[in-house]
Amino acid sequence: MNKAEISKLLQRVKDNEIEVETAMGIIEDLPYKEMGFAKIDNHREIRVGYPEVIYCEGKTVEQVKSIIEFMLTKDNNILATRANEKMYEAVKSICAEAQYNPLGRTITIRKREENLTDSYIAIISAGTSDMPVVEEAAETATILGNRVEKIIDVGVAGIHRLFAKIDIIRGAKVVIVIAGMEGALASVIGGLVDKPIIAVPTSVGYGANFGGLSALLSMLNSCASGVSVVNIDNGFGAAYNASIINKL
Amino acid sequence: MNKAEISKLLQRVKDNEIEVETAMGIIEDLPYKEMGFAKIDNHREIRVGYPEVIYCEGKTVEQVKSIIEFMLTKDNNILATRANEKMYEAVKSICAEAQYNPLGRTITIRKREENLTDSYIAIISAGTSDMPVVEEAAETATILGNRVEKIIDVGVAGIHRLFAKIDIIRGAKVVIVIAGMEGALASVIGGLVDKPIIAVPTSVGYGANFGGLSALLSMLNSCASGVSVVNIDNGFGAAYNASIINKL
Amino acid sequence: MNKAEISKLLQRVKDNEIEVETAMGIIEDLPYKEMGFAKIDNHREIRVGYPEVIYCEGKTVEQVKSIIEFMLTKDNNILATRANEKMYEAVKSICAEAQYNPLGRTITIRKREENLTDSYIAIISAGTSDMPVVEEAAETATILGNRVEKIIDVGVAGIHRLFAKIDIIRGAKVVIVIAGMEGALASVIGGLVDKPIIAVPTSVGYGANFGGLSALLSMLNSCASGVSVVNIDNGFGAAYNASIINKL
Amino acid sequence: MNKAEISKLLQRVKDNEIEVETAMGIIEDLPYKEMGFAKIDNHREIRVGYPEVIYCEGKTVEQVKSIIEFMLTKDNNILATRANEKMYEAVKSICAEAQYNPLGRTITIRKREENLTDSYIAIISAGTSDMPVVEEAAETATILGNRVEKIIDVGVAGIHRLFAKIDIIRGAKVVIVIAGMEGALASVIGGLVDKPIIAVPTSVGYGANFGGLSALLSMLNSCASGVSVVNIDNGFGAAYNASIINKL
Amino acid sequence: MNKAEISKLLQRVKDNEIEVETAMGIIEDLPYKEMGFAKIDNHREIRVGYPEVIYCEGKTVEQVKSIIEFMLTKDNNILATRANEKMYEAVKSICAEAQYNPLGRTITIRKREENLTDSYIAIISAGTSDMPVVEEAAETATILGNRVEKIIDVGVAGIHRLFAKIDIIRGAKVVIVIAGMEGALASVIGGLVDKPIIAVPTSVGYGANFGGLSALLSMLNSCASGVSVVNIDNGFGAAYNASIINKL
Amino acid sequence: MNKAEISKLLQRVKDNEIEVETAMGIIEDLPYKEMGFAKIDNHREIRVGYPEVIYCEGKTVEQVKSIIEFMLTKDNNILATRANEKMYEAVKSICAEAQYNPLGRTITIRKREENLTDSYIAIISAGTSDMPVVEEAAETATILGNRVEKIIDVGVAGIHRLFAKIDIIRGAKVVIVIAGMEGALASVIGGLVDKPIIAVPTSVGYGANFGGLSALLSMLNSCASGVSVVNIDNGFGAAYNASIINKL
Amino acid sequence: MNKAEISKLLQRVKDNEIEVETAMGIIEDLPYKEMGFAKIDNHREIRVGYPEVIYCEGKTVEQVKSIIEFMLTKDNNILATRANEKMYEAVKSICAEAQYNPLGRTITIRKREENLTDSYIAIISAGTSDMPVVEEAAETATILGNRVEKIIDVGVAGIHRLFAKIDIIRGAKVVIVIAGMEGALASVIGGLVDKPIIAVPTSVGYGANFGGLSALLSMLNSCASGVSVVNIDNGFGAAYNASIINKL
Amino acid sequence: MNKAEISKLLQRVKDNEIEVETAMGIIEDLPYKEMGFAKIDNHREIRVGYPEVIYCEGKTVEQVKSIIEFMLTKDNNILATRANEKMYEAVKSICAEAQYNPLGRTITIRKREENLTDSYIAIISAGTSDMPVVEEAAETATILGNRVEKIIDVGVAGIHRLFAKIDIIRGAKVVIVIAGMEGALASVIGGLVDKPIIAVPTSVGYGANFGGLSALLSMLNSCASGVSVVNIDNGFGAAYNASIINKL
Repeated sequence: MNKAEISKLLQRVKDNEIEVETAMGIIEDLPYKEMGFAKIDNHREIRVGYPEVIYCEGKTVEQVKSIIEFMLTKDNNILATRANEKMYEAVKSICAEAQYNPLGRTITIRKREENLTDSYIAIISAGTSDMPVVEEAAETATILGNRVEKIIDVGVAGIHRLFAKIDIIRGAKVVIVIAGMEGALASVIGGLVDKPIIAVPTSVGYGANFGGLSALLSMLNSCASGVSVVNIDNGFGAAYNASIINKL
Repeated sequence: MNKAEISKLLQRVKDNEIEVETAMGIIEDLPYKEMGFAKIDNHREIRVGYPEVIYCEGKTVEQVKSIIEFMLTKDNNILATRANEKMYEAVKSICAEAQYNPLGRTITIRKREENLTDSYIAIISAGTSDMPVVEEAAETATILGNRVEKIIDVGVAGIHRLFAKIDIIRGAKVVIVIAGMEGALASVIGGLVDKPIIAVPTSVGYGANFGGLSALLSMLNSCASGVSVVNIDNGFGAAYNASIINKL
Repeated sequence: MNKAEISKLLQRVKDNEIEVETAMGIIEDLPYKEMGFAKIDNHREIRVGYPEVIYCEGKTVEQVKSIIEFMLTKDNNILATRANEKMYEAVKSICAEAQYNPLGRTITIRKREENLTDSYIAIISAGTSDMPVVEEAAETATILGNRVEKIIDVGVAGIHRLFAKIDIIRGAKVVIVIAGMEGALASVIGGLVDKPIIAVPTSVGYGANFGGLSALLSMLNSCASGVSVVNIDNGFGAAYNASIINKL
Repeated sequence: MNKAEISKLLQRVKDNEIEVETAMGIIEDLPYKEMGFAKIDNHREIRVGYPEVIYCEGKTVEQVKSIIEFMLTKDNNILATRANEKMYEAVKSICAEAQYNPLGRTITIRKREENLTDSYIAIISAGTSDMPVVEEAAETATILGNRVEKIIDVGVAGIHRLFAKIDIIRGAKVVIVIAGMEGALASVIGGLVDKPIIAVPTSVGYGANFGGLSALLSMLNSCASGVSVVNIDNGFGAAYNASIINKL
Repeated sequence: MNKAEISKLLQRVKDNEIEVETAMGIIEDLPYKEMGFAKIDNHREIRVGYPEVIYCEGKTVEQVKSIIEFMLTKDNNILATRANEKMYEAVKSICAEAQYNPLGRTITIRKREENLTDSYIAIISAGTSDMPVVEEAAETATILGNRVEKIIDVGVAGIHRLFAKIDIIRGAKVVIVIAGMEGALASVIGGLVDKPIIAVPTSVGYGANFGGLSALLSMLNSCASGVSVVNIDNGFGAAYNASIINKL
Repeated sequence: MNKAEISKLLQRVKDNEIEVETAMGIIEDLPYKEMGFAKIDNHREIRVGYPEVIYCEGKTVEQVKSIIEFMLTKDNNILATRANEKMYEAVKSICAEAQYNPLGRTITIRKREENLTDSYIAIISAGTSDMPVVEEAAETATILGNRVEKIIDVGVAGIHRLFAKIDIIRGAKVVIVIAGMEGALASVIGGLVDKPIIAVPTSVGYGANFGGLSALLSMLNSCASGVSVVNIDNGFGAAYNASIINKL
Repeated sequence: MNKAEISKLLQRVKDNEIEVETAMGIIEDLPYKEMGFAKIDNHREIRVGYPEVIYCEGKTVEQVKSIIEFMLTKDNNILATRANEKMYEAVKSICAEAQYNPLGRTITIRKREENLTDSYIAIISAGTSDMPVVEEAAETATILGNRVEKIIDVGVAGIHRLFAKIDIIRGAKVVIVIAGMEGALASVIGGLVDKPIIAVPTSVGYGANFGGLSALLSMLNSCASGVSVVNIDNGFGAAYNASIINKL
Repeated sequence: MNKAEISKLLQRVKDNEIEVETAMGIIEDLPYKEMGFAKIDNHREIRVGYPEVIYCEGKTVEQVKSIIEFMLTKDNNILATRANEKMYEAVKSICAEAQYNPLGRTITIRKREENLTDSYIAIISAGTSDMPVVEEAAETATILGNRVEKIIDVGVAGIHRLFAKIDIIRGAKVVIVIAGMEGALASVIGGLVDKPIIAVPTSVGYGANFGGLSALLSMLNSCASGVSVVNIDNGFGAAYNASIINKL
C-alpha cells in the first residue's frame, strides 16, 4: 500500500464513501499487508507467484500431510524439501500427481505450468556423493521457474573434466557450485567465470571434514572474488538465491 | 577458440597457408589464451574493463608503491584495499590524484570516468562500528561502476530505524548487509525484501563473538532464504559479488 | 535458624528445658536445615511449595517409576522432564491422574491446585520446530504456578507476524524467547520490549548450526541489552528462571 | 497509538477537523512512533528516564567526545563504558563534573539525582582479578538507579568466605555473579539462594580458559536452575538486565 | 639389570662360566627385560602383581572372550572395562566366577584375594547420572587392591549434602571427583581438602556441554590448586592413578 | 602428447595423411589425454597401470555392484574401499574371485599378477583397535604393487615392543604410522628413523579425543621433522602416498 | 569441632560455666572455623605451614608490592608467580632478600628455612623452550619444601636422551612432565615408570598447536594409565599437586 | 651395533683382549650409540652429514648467538630458522660469511660445499603473501643439498598460470605446495601430477581463515590421493621431508 493508496483511502473516509471502522481495519493491517506475502512455515517463505514450500525435517508424516492438504486448497505449485519416502506416500494418497525425487528428497506438486526462464542456472558438483544436494537444488530451481543445467562429477582432482564443460558453465547467468571434502571447486570456477557463484559446502567426507566444516571454511576463504556461500548441504537456499538473481 | 576456429586453422595448415610451427604455437597455448584475462595479484583478479586491484595487507609500503607504479603504466582505474596511511603517502608521491578513505582503508586512482549503473547496490550496516567494512564495500562498488546507497546504523535492537529506510532498501537491485555481534540484521532484511542479499559478518564485538564467528554462523543459518555469505570483514568481496549481479 | 533461635535454644539448655543431646542434634544439623530445602535429584532442586522435579534423560524406566513412587508419598505436585512414552506408561500404572505432553516430553501430576499468578510469562518461539522446547517451558512454568501466554512461529524472516503480537509480549512480566537457526528473534524482541528476556537457543537447524551453537552465540552476542541466556534446548531452566522473576 | 486513537483520528478526518495530508503523515509514521523510544548508539539503547549510554570500544577519542557533547544538550544522566583515560580527559574538558572509574573503565555524568531503589542488586565476584567487570556492573546498576551491594573475592576455592556473606546475598532481589577460570561460583550460589541469578563469565585465566570460554560453558551448564548467562566480560549487560528485574 | 649385574655377566664370560651366545641373548634383550613388565593390550598396561586389564570398546565379543581365555592361563586377577552384557555372557561360559557390574560395564575375575590398603580412596560424584563412571572407578580401584569409599550425589547445587560427608572425604588419602555438566564439584572439594584430587569430567549433560567439554575445561581451569584431570568419562584412568598414589 | 607429437600430427595434416576432422578430434581432447589418466570416481583417481579404485561409503549396494561390473569389462585390478559385507556379496555374485577383508572393509579383484617391489612399506600401528586402518592401508599398498611389512600393537606406552622391531622399521623405504588416542607413536618413530613417515591419525579413543582430533593435532605438531600427515582414518590415502614414494 | 567438643560446650552452658552469648558466637562460626585455613588470594590458597602465594598476572606493580608488604608482617615464606622484572624491583625495595627467577618469573622470599623432603619430585621437560614452566614448577616445589630433580630437553624425537636419565626418573616419588608441541613425552614416560605423573601441556609451538591445545589433548588421551593433567603452562599447579603427593 | 658385533665384543672379553669395564661401557651405551646422531635442539634434529639446525623462535639473541658459536667449532653447515634481523647481526659479528634471507627469516652458514641432487624439489605457492614460507622451505631444501625450482603465485583463481608451469612441476621428484586462504592448490596439483606432494597450509588470510585452519582442513580433506600435510607455516618441515624423499 503506497502513499497514493493511503491518501485515496483517507479521501474516501472524508467523502463518507467508506466507514471509519472499515478504514481502521485496513490501516491496522498496514504494516503486514504492505509486505505482500504470507507464511505457513517460518523457515522458508513463499511469496506471490512462488510455489509454497514446506521443510519436512523434524516434522511428522501426519504434519506434513495436513500442511500440504491445506496448501492444496490454494492454487500454487508446492515444494516439500527433506521429505522421506513415507511422507511422499502420505502425500500421494491425497494428491495423485505428487512426484518424488528420492535422491534430492523432494516432493513436488505442479498445479500450474511454469514458464521457464531463457537464461539458465548451472548447478555444478564435485562428486557423485554430492548428488542429494544437487537434486534438491535442481528441483527447487525448476519449480521456481528456472531453466537448469546440471554438470556433475567435475571435482578438481581431475580438472580436465571441468574444462570440457567450461562453455556450458560460462553460458549460465548464475552458477551454483556444490562440493564437499576440501571444497576447492568453488575457487577454481570462481577464477574461470565472471558470473555470480553461490557455493554450497556439503557434509560429504570423513575425519577432519568435521561435518562439512572443511568445505565451508574453504569456500568462505576463497581466493576468487565472485563467490558467496550458503549453509552446509543447503541446496534449497542456493537455488532460491540463484532464482532471485536469475530473474533480475 | 571454438571448434570452427580449430577446424579453420587445420584447414589453413592443410592448404599450406600457415607453417606447422606457427600452428603448433597456437595449439599449445590453447587452454590458456581462451580464458582471456590476466592477473597481477592472485588474491583479487582483474578482468577486461575492470579496475586493477591490489590487496595491501602483508605487503610492505615499498611493494605496494612499486606495484601501483607498474599499474599506472596502463590506463585502468586502480583500487588498493587494506592500505594504511603510509602506503597512501608513498602512492601519492608518484600519483597526485590518488585518494584515500581512512575508514575504509582504500586508495583509489581514477584514470577514466566510470558510467555508474542506473540500478543501485544498497549497503546496510547494523552499527557505526561496522563503518570500516561499509566504506571498503562502498569504495569497491563505486570504482567498479555501481551506484551505491548507504544505510548505516539500523541494527535490529532498534528495528524502527530499519523500517524508516525500507523503501530505499527495496529499491535496490542487490543488497549488502554488514553486521557484527549477533548478525541478526541479515535475517530480518531477508524477510523483508525479495532481492539477492550478500551478508558480511564483521569482527565487531567481544567475548563469545570469537572474532566474528558469532555473526558468521548466524548469517549462514539465516532462516530467510535469499541470503548468501562472504568472509568476515570482507567488504571488497561482497561489493565485487554485488557488482557482478548488479550488472547482469 | 536465625540468631534469635540459636540464642533461645542455648537458653533452654541453660534452663534445663532441653537435653544436651537433643540440642546437640539440632546444632549438628544447623548448616543444612537453615537452607530450608531438600533434594531428591541433584540436577534440579525442589524448594518448599515447589513441585518436585525429576530429570528423566539417562535414567531407566524403572528408575523413573520408583522415584515418582517415592515422591507420591509426599503431597507435592510432580514434574518429570525429558520423559519418553514408556516412562509415562509406567508412571500411569501407579498414578492414574498423571498427564503426558508428548511434544514437551513432560509428565505432570497435580496433587494440589496451584493459584496462577496474575502477571504472566510470555513464551515466544521462532518456528514450529521449536515446539518441544516451548512445551517443556510452558509445562514447567504452569506447574510452578505461573500464567503463561504462548506466541509461536513468529521468526524474524516474517517480522510482521511478530508485530501483530507485540501487545501481548509487552504485557508480560517476563519474556522467554526460544529460537534455533540464527536465533535473531531474541535481539529483535530485546529491542522492542523493556522486560527481562530469557533466551533459549535450540538445536533446530543443520550444517553450520553445529547442534545449537549458532543460536547460542547469537543470543550471547545480542546487541539488545535485556537478554540473558540459558543452555541449548533448556526449556525447563528458562521457565524456572522466569518463574522466580515473575513471582518477585 | 492504540485502536481508540486510530479510530479518533479517522473520525477527525471524516469530520474535516484534520487534513488528509496531515493524517497521512501520522499514519505513515505509525509503526515507528508507537515504539516510543529513540537511539543514539545501536549497541546499547536508551529509553525514557534512562541514562544515555555510549559504548566507547572501537571509537576514537574525538568521536566519544562529540557524542557526549551532543548528549549534554539533553538533560539525561550519561554513562560511557569501555572508556580509556584519554577519552575521560577529553570529556572532562567539556564537562567538569564527569567522573572516571579507572578499574571499571566508565565515565559517568550526573545531571539529575536518581532515587535509588529500596531493594538491592548483589554483585558477587570470585576473585580480585574480576574487579573490572564488577566495577562496570556496579557503575551501570547505580546510574540506572539501583542500590548495589558488592561482595568480592568469595571464589569457591575458599567456600567459607562465601558463607560469611550468605545473608547479604539472600537479601538481594537480584544477584549478579561474576567469575572467570572455571566459573563454579554461579552454580554454588544458584544452589544457595532462590533469586534470579545473572552470571557473567570473565576472560580471567590462562591456557585452557580460551578467553573466557571455560567459564561461559560452565555457567551455561550450571546444575542450578535459576542461573542465566550474558556475554563474557559483559558487566554492563548483566547490570542492565538486573536493573530491569530489580525495578519490576 | 643394573651396572653390577652387567659387570658380573661379563666377568662370567671372561671366566668361561657362560657361553658367548648365551650372554649375547641376555644382552640383546637388555632394553626390554630391564623394564620388567609385559603387555597384552597397548591401551592399558599391567605390571607385576597387578590384575590384567582389557579394554573392550571396539573389540568383538569373540576377541574379548579369547583374550580373557588366554589371560586365564595365568594366575592374575582380571579386569575388563567397557564390556557389554554379551561379552559378559561369553566370558561366563568359560569362567563361572566372572562377575559383571552392569552400571560400570566391568567384568572382574578374582584368582587371588587382594589385601586391601588401610588408607582409602574417596570416590565422589556430583549426580546419579555419573554412576557409570563411579562404578568403573570403584571396580578398578578395588581390584587394584584399594579400600574405597563412595560418596555419590553431592553436587554443588545442594552444597549442604557435601558438607555432611566432609569428614569421610578428608579422611581419604586420595580423592577422585567425578562430575558432568559444569564440573564445579572439583573446585569446591579442592578448596576444602588438602589431598591429591583427581578430577574426571563426564559427558553427562546436553547442549553447550558438548560431550563433556564443559566439565573438562572447568576442571582444567580449577581455581583450587590440588586438582589434576584425566580424560572425559575415564573412570579407569582416575582409579589407576589414585591407586599408584594410595600405595606410595 | 608432447611437442614432437603435435608437430608430427600437423605435418600429417599438411601432407594429407590425415583428415582435418580426425586431427580436430585429437586436438580437442588434448588437454585431457595429455594428463594420461581417466577417472570413474572423483574421489580416488586411477592412473595407467594402477588398479581401479572405488570408494563405497555413501553409495548403495546396487551402485557399487554396477560400477564394478563396468570396471570388470576392462583388464585392471580393482580395489573397493569402505565396503560392507552386503556390497561384497553383491560383487561376488558377478565375480567369483573377488576377495573381502572384513577388518579393512576392502574388496579386491586381481586380474593380473602384480610384481611386488623389492623395497617395502612398513605399516606400524599403536594398538589393536587401529587394525581397520592398518588393513585398509595394507590392502591398498599391496594391490598397488608394494611389498608390505605390518608391525602392530607397538604403542608408546610399552616402548620396548617398538624397539624389538626397530630393524624392520629402519629397513623400510617408507613408513606409515597409524595411531589414535594421543598419536605419540609418529613422533617417537620420527626420532628413530630417517625415512619419510606418513602419519595416519585414527578416531580410536573417547572423550577429549574428539573423533581423532587429538591424534591429528599431535601428528601435525610432531617435534620430529620427517613426519607428514593425512586425514583421520585415511589408510587408503597413506598407502597411495607411500606407494608413489616407494616406486620413485 | 567434633561431636565431643560440641557436647562439652553445651554441657558448659548447662553448667553455667559459659555465657549463652559466648556459646552462640562459637556455634555461629562453626562451619567456617572448622576449615582451619585463611586466604589472601582466592586463586591460590595458602594453608598452615605453607608459604603464602600471590599470582601477579593482571595485577599492577603497586598491588603486588602492597600485598607482599602485608604478607611480610607474618612469618611465612612467600612465593609470587607470573611476576615481571618491575614487580621484582618494587618488592626488592621493601625486602632486600627477595630473589627473582627471570625464566620462571617467580619472586621468592624465605623467612624460615624449609627442611626438604627425602623423596624428590622429578621435573622433566621435552625442550629448552619449555624452561619457563620448568622453572615455575621447580621454584614452587622447592619453596613448598620438596627436593627436586630437573631433567630438561629429553623430548621424544631423540628418545635415547630420555633413556640415559631413566634411573633418576624412576627414583622419584612423583614425576612432572612438561611438554609443548605434540606432548608425546607424557605417554612415553607413563609407559616407563610406575609413579604418579602430572603432565603440564605448554603453549610452545605454532600453527596447529593452537596455544597449547595440541599438547593438552594429547596428554588427556594418553594411552599410559598413570597420567593426569593440569592447565596449559600451569607449572605452579603441577608442583603444588606434586608436593601434596610427595608429602603423603 | 649388530649381532655379529656384539658376538665379537663378547669373544674379545672372553679372549682377554678387552677389559670387562671397557666392554661394560660399550654395552651400556648400546641403545643410544646405535642411533648414530646427536641433538642440540630437541625440536629439529641433525643427523650425520646434515647441517646443524637451530629454531630461533622463543630464544633470545644471546642464546642464538652462543648456540651458533658452539656449532661453529664443528665443521658442519648451519641453518637457523625463524631468525630475526637482530639475531643475524649478532651471528654476523662472530661469523662474517653468515647469510640472511629476510623474507624466509633464515640464517645460513656454509662450511662445506654441498653437491646438489640431480633430481629437484618443486616448491609451488599460491600467492605472493606465501613467500616467507616459500623462502624458508627453499633455504632449507638447498642447504640439505637439494636442487630446487620455485614456482610462485600460481593460485587456483587464475588456473592458466599454473598450466603454464605444469612441465616444470611434473619434472620434479617431490612437490611442495604452499597455500593459505582455502588451500585449493594442493588438490588441483594432486590431480595433475603423480609425485609425492607435501602440502603446507599457511596462515595467510583473515576472518574465517582462523590462523591457517581453513587451509589446513582443506589440505587434509584433499580429494587428490597423493597429498600429505605438515603444520601451518612449517616450510622447514616440508623441505626436510621432501629432502628425505628426494634422496631415496
